[in-house]
Amino acid sequence: MTTLPVTIDATSPQASCCPPAADAMVDDATAQDLAKVFKALGDPNRVKLFSLITASASGEMCVCDLTGPVGLSQPTVSHHMKLLVEAGLVTREQRGKWAYYQPAIGTLANAAQAFTA
Amino acid sequence: MTTLPVTIDATSPQASCCPPAADAMVDDATAQDLAKVFKALGDPNRVKLFSLITASASGEMCVCDLTGPVGLSQPTVSHHMKLLVEAGLVTREQRGKWAYYQPAIGTLANAAQAFTA
Repeated sequence: MTTLPVTIDATSPQASCCPPAADAMVDDATAQDLAKVFKALGDPNRVKLFSLITASASGEMCVCDLTGPVGLSQPTVSHHMKLLVEAGLVTREQRGKWAYYQPAIGTLANAAQAFTA
Repeated sequence: MTTLPVTIDATSPQASCCPPAADAMVDDATAQDLAKVFKALGDPNRVKLFSLITASASGEMCVCDLTGPVGLSQPTVSHHMKLLVEAGLVTREQRGKWAYYQPAIGTLANAAQAFTA
């Protein structure tokens, strides 16, 4: 009797019983990074603040102009803005007494596109 | 002496001292809706689950195939999936014993585009 060698390539989809490949899943570090971006926008007040900054005709907003529309105190707005900065959604520049915030172009779009590969 | 009438149009940008117009801000209901979508993805495990579902070649994933890659129990995965369903990021279909999840095309992209008007 002749035995034929059988080779199973573990990297081949045919080797798996289950259609979903685990390698289609984002890795731990990427998942953490993406969750940070989305979590920063997971609050209605931060959504409002981010909408003001991205819509600013001058390309930036002073913290002094953010408090009025959202109806929050400046310390509370600054706290929310810190989370948006840490998530990479906006950048912050201190000029004299006031902090100015600029939208970080692409951060949100890139995060959203991570799922459409 | 003749007095001339002075008309100030409060809706005109010229009437405001401040460049940011509050009407550039998303309204309360929109902010709530957007925050719900982003909050649902504000967790690394839900990011992983969503990445598996959006990458599925068959266009859907059985809950039984989601537990392994993320290393979580089925009740925990079902809890995470409930939040993704409620945010409108995936749809759920019960077939016999198992729940199957399909990505809701456009929900995340639309949410991200709310800021680039």
